[in-house]
Amino acid sequence: MIPRLYVESALSTGGAVELDAARSHYLRGVLRREAGSDVLLFNGRDGEWQGRIARIAKSGARVQLSSLKRPQQQSPDLWLVFAAIKRIDVVAEKATELGCSCLWPMLTQHTAVSRVNLERLRANTIEAAEQSERLDIPDIRTPAKLGEILDSWSPTRRLILCAESGDAIPIAQALHDMPPEAPYAVMCGPEGGFARSELDALSKLPFVTAVGLGPRVLRADTAALAALACWQAILGDGRERPPAR
Amino acid sequence: MIPRLYVESALSTGGAVELDAARSHYLRGVLRREAGSDVLLFNGRDGEWQGRIARIAKSGARVQLSSLKRPQQQSPDLWLVFAAIKRIDVVAEKATELGCSCLWPMLTQHTAVSRVNLERLRANTIEAAEQSERLDIPDIRTPAKLGEILDSWSPTRRLILCAESGDAIPIAQALHDMPPEAPYAVMCGPEGGFARSELDALSKLPFVTAVGLGPRVLRADTAALAALACWQAILGDGRERPPAR
Repeated sequence: MIPRLYVESALSTGGAVELDAARSHYLRGVLRREAGSDVLLFNGRDGEWQGRIARIAKSGARVQLSSLKRPQQQSPDLWLVFAAIKRIDVVAEKATELGCSCLWPMLTQHTAVSRVNLERLRANTIEAAEQSERLDIPDIRTPAKLGEILDSWSPTRRLILCAESGDAIPIAQALHDMPPEAPYAVMCGPEGGFARSELDALSKLPFVTAVGLGPRVLRADTAALAALACWQAILGDGRERPPAR
Repeated sequence: MIPRLYVESALSTGGAVELDAARSHYLRGVLRREAGSDVLLFNGRDGEWQGRIARIAKSGARVQLSSLKRPQQQSPDLWLVFAAIKRIDVVAEKATELGCSCLWPMLTQHTAVSRVNLERLRANTIEAAEQSERLDIPDIRTPAKLGEILDSWSPTRRLILCAESGDAIPIAQALHDMPPEAPYAVMCGPEGGFARSELDALSKLPFVTAVGLGPRVLRADTAALAALACWQAILGDGRERPPAR
């Protein structure tokens, strides 16, 4: 297996990329790679490049780029707006694997977690993107209150609300009846659920569709992942295949 | 919120149930319940019953049953056959939430984990069933080698194979073309994937359908949960709603 790393630098023919000490340690100390070993690099803009380690030391490494392996491709425009819950690391990892383009932590009336470690969230998404063969990493937005999120919402983005109570359309049916071209978001509440007043406000918005995920009450992280998986399968890029290795 | 507990005892009108020290501690020490408090009990056979704590102490508690709240309902006949991976606790919890009827740990050529703690697996499924309003808990089968599992397979049970390489039908399309009445299983390989020879053997079996889950390579636990979520949405009980509380 050729190691696959996300970098910030531009990637182009004949170019070289400097890796920091952490990346160098990962390649050298964890994966036992040396000068001359192949690596794959991507930055979310320039596609995936194969390169060769020119120099590797404790302080950093240098990769000489050889060839473009896969042209850049963006993930579908699918946000996840989710209450800041304890299992936020699991959500970040799995949402990245499931091709989410943007993670937006949300504060609601019943949200138990008030501070979100955005750096850690970003590290989780990068690692999941590296592992899952993604060519981009999800954006991470600054946590905001539900009301602020809705105030700034573009009505062209359809919001799929995971609703464990009240009226809701079964998710498969809802997705079948929705247009594949639109930008989308999945929204999931906190462990304690949305407050009644929050659900009422959401249900009045023309861009919101409340969906049901069956007769069991899912944990917040499970609901988010189930909805993202169904979206990708029915409306997203579920027909595509991973690159052959 | 009325506490909801799984018990082994029979449940019927006028009956009483003895809870062991662990259950009693949970009610008394964690949830601060006392004699006179309401609880909900289910055993996977007799539906969900409301009862009242008649006596509670460190050594145990006694619940006097009052009324049947929900008649028994079985989860759809959907197994999960999954390679014994490190994150088996996550798989057990989420597969239970997603309405899986049977968990079968599998040993494959590339399975890194050789021992499975079945008691812990069972404890995870019970807790997830209690939290998710399920009325039954998944069966747990003794871990077995892939070959043994296939030798004992009933060909009427359709096997949905999560395949990250080789030929595969997109999961939404595959599920749409399959009969809703049949018993099913989802099968997921280990972190290192199936061996080529294992995939070849699987692909020759008439009851196997290899499905694709999009262009990203999913972790074993993510693949299992994505496939279960899609199955429930398209072929399972995704149209039902949780009980009103």
